[in-house]
Amino acid sequence: MNNLPLITALTDFGTADGYVGTMKGVILGIVPQARLVDISHEIAPQNLRQAAYVLYTAYPFFPPHTVHLIVVDPGVGSARRPIALRTPVGTFVAPDNGVLSYVIAREQVEAVVELSDPRYRLSQVSHTFHGRDVFAPAAAHLAAGVPIAALGPPVDDPVTFPTPRLEIAPDAITGEVLHADHFGNVITSIGQLVWSGDELLLEPAFEKGERGQPARSNQVERGHFARLDSGAARVAVAGHEIRGVHRTYAQKARGETLALVGSEGHLEIAVREGSAAQRLGLRPGDEVILRT
Amino acid sequence: MNNLPLITALTDFGTADGYVGTMKGVILGIVPQARLVDISHEIAPQNLRQAAYVLYTAYPFFPPHTVHLIVVDPGVGSARRPIALRTPVGTFVAPDNGVLSYVIAREQVEAVVELSDPRYRLSQVSHTFHGRDVFAPAAAHLAAGVPIAALGPPVDDPVTFPTPRLEIAPDAITGEVLHADHFGNVITSIGQLVWSGDELLLEPAFEKGERGQPARSNQVERGHFARLDSGAARVAVAGHEIRGVHRTYAQKARGETLALVGSEGHLEIAVREGSAAQRLGLRPGDEVILRT
Amino acid sequence: MNNLPLITALTDFGTADGYVGTMKGVILGIVPQARLVDISHEIAPQNLRQAAYVLYTAYPFFPPHTVHLIVVDPGVGSARRPIALRTPVGTFVAPDNGVLSYVIAREQVEAVVELSDPRYRLSQVSHTFHGRDVFAPAAAHLAAGVPIAALGPPVDDPVTFPTPRLEIAPDAITGEVLHADHFGNVITSIGQLVWSGDELLLEPAFEKGERGQPARSNQVERGHFARLDSGAARVAVAGHEIRGVHRTYAQKARGETLALVGSEGHLEIAVREGSAAQRLGLRPGDEVILRT
Repeated sequence: MNNLPLITALTDFGTADGYVGTMKGVILGIVPQARLVDISHEIAPQNLRQAAYVLYTAYPFFPPHTVHLIVVDPGVGSARRPIALRTPVGTFVAPDNGVLSYVIAREQVEAVVELSDPRYRLSQVSHTFHGRDVFAPAAAHLAAGVPIAALGPPVDDPVTFPTPRLEIAPDAITGEVLHADHFGNVITSIGQLVWSGDELLLEPAFEKGERGQPARSNQVERGHFARLDSGAARVAVAGHEIRGVHRTYAQKARGETLALVGSEGHLEIAVREGSAAQRLGLRPGDEVILRT
Repeated sequence: MNNLPLITALTDFGTADGYVGTMKGVILGIVPQARLVDISHEIAPQNLRQAAYVLYTAYPFFPPHTVHLIVVDPGVGSARRPIALRTPVGTFVAPDNGVLSYVIAREQVEAVVELSDPRYRLSQVSHTFHGRDVFAPAAAHLAAGVPIAALGPPVDDPVTFPTPRLEIAPDAITGEVLHADHFGNVITSIGQLVWSGDELLLEPAFEKGERGQPARSNQVERGHFARLDSGAARVAVAGHEIRGVHRTYAQKARGETLALVGSEGHLEIAVREGSAAQRLGLRPGDEVILRT
Repeated sequence: MNNLPLITALTDFGTADGYVGTMKGVILGIVPQARLVDISHEIAPQNLRQAAYVLYTAYPFFPPHTVHLIVVDPGVGSARRPIALRTPVGTFVAPDNGVLSYVIAREQVEAVVELSDPRYRLSQVSHTFHGRDVFAPAAAHLAAGVPIAALGPPVDDPVTFPTPRLEIAPDAITGEVLHADHFGNVITSIGQLVWSGDELLLEPAFEKGERGQPARSNQVERGHFARLDSGAARVAVAGHEIRGVHRTYAQKARGETLALVGSEGHLEIAVREGSAAQRLGLRPGDEVILRT
């Protein structure tokens, strides 16, 4: 492997306790030249869906040799398996609890193994901190070039949870709130939306496919994709109706509510220089309808 | 460029969402050996003055080949220009919205360009996340050694906002609160103050000049600098008067309020092992008077 | 030194102000190839015991050539000494205020020096930010290979505070709450506990010794160690009694309170997927009794 080893970290550990730093100490003891990048350590404790969503927004922007270490692990010490999963766009190390669901839904999975070989764990494995004792060493060895098959036996049935709601009807697309970000912008499962002039094409985000390609008309006919007029569209959410789908916050005055296509290509509800999550009281799972 | 590429990041993104990590993925895809340092990601959303202040405290301590990436960008997707700005002490990549005002006020500006060349952007540029699609790639290419002029045409009139209030009269220096830090220490625009025995010399912080040099008497006569007796001085702020200007917190007992010269050389109001911001209810923009 | 220089940072600075980034700028100006790892910057302001605890959980997992930079410094600008301390498992740079107490208690101290040589400080040293002006440069020079003795004269009496309460009687071990982590798990001073089948052996954590070795019976006889049956044990804390000592959270149902051996080998009180700190109202210093 000629690339500089690169490992990202995504956890629900917070940054006050030193747990993240400890994992990095373990990694750098194994692969001293590794580059380490934090994705987030502020996933709500044990919130697998939030972690899966944040991972989905970040991993496509890393080089394919990156090892992504995800430790949101409510089942630590139980029978849940620790796994590594390889795709052409990155390798993922995580507990087998569904946190990789969106990766599995979107990418070609080349290999999944259980992290069982003791050579790639710390010599003492605690019952409560597999991030340090199992996952960090595995990520380090993978980044150093150890083949994934060396880490343990194949896993045929990694755990996944259902992909987010996305129902396409002739005059309405129904989805759900996925995430409210730091700014209070509310990201929904209605994506990915791709601009084609003033029209929007919908390419379901959590399916395998050639992303970034305009939808072909036969796919639209198959009901697989949808096409809509951004000016005429209406978004119904939490008893509110929002007119039009915009390109960016700056198209509205400060304090106004708008619907737009966010940076991951998903329908987003925002308040310019304000918090839509707060104003509209939106929470993950709330229904969102985009009327075409 | 023989130096290891070094890029800092300063944003209002928070650290929960993965936006910062995503920018780092983009950077390391372009310049894998880059060193990345976080300045802060907890700037209050869209608060340009706070970002400008935090940048001011940090950039002088980095090597001159550093590229500073600043993304506080309320105008993303509008006509505001993305720019890069080179000085002898560092290169800065940011939206052209005033966030570089203090750099422009203090440093010799060698070049400013608009980031318009598509070779130095991601192939798909969203309307809402130029940090990822425009600013991070530009910072990466600059750190990799691409000359600033290659990124786009010159900008003659970068946006600046007025430097903080600093009025020097024979018996009083009037300024304003700039920032309350994590400890509740309140930093004011009255700076930079340099100790000369028990006297203090004032060298206006947001002007070009030879910093770290004692003021010359003719400059004091020109009203450009001031000189004051630290023991006899009085600080008036929010209806309180504080006696004397001290060197450090430890000169007062726990819980006492004091004025001192802070680590950036600015007049600071503090409570030893407590929060002056909370006790005195101080906020950015509040008037501060230092009577000589 | 053939190892890549590696420096960790542990402070009470928070991450909003740029103070941490500034220290890293200073370090990379001195040793550009240094690897930097954050342990925590969210120590409660001036809380030396919390910092000492977090350091204790992290430093054993870093390579021995690591330099650990700890800046929790209520006495900055007073007569308190800045020091560096070398052990076979790492070098530590900190104010001499007790924050290294647990390191000194556990490790073989090879050298302690006062950081007084101006060659290894910034040229201008402020009275309020020795993290930037004294400690960061010292850590950088040490990581670059400067011998510790070059930094200043030996210190014979570094400040320590008493190690946490740990009283071993025939039928009860009495300790105190050390820390509540991000998840609300409450870690106590009763450690380190090592599993031996279903029995637990106690090896006092804050004493020098060969850790990770099962206690020898003569040590138990000397009252130095204790041995207990994990199923029969009872934990008394804050008026509650908890039955048994478990291996991991997953041995209880969601929402149940349990006692277990945590990831540092200390007795821990937890609520599965909940917060024991909140439910039981536990705070550092509260008494904990483990009845055998």
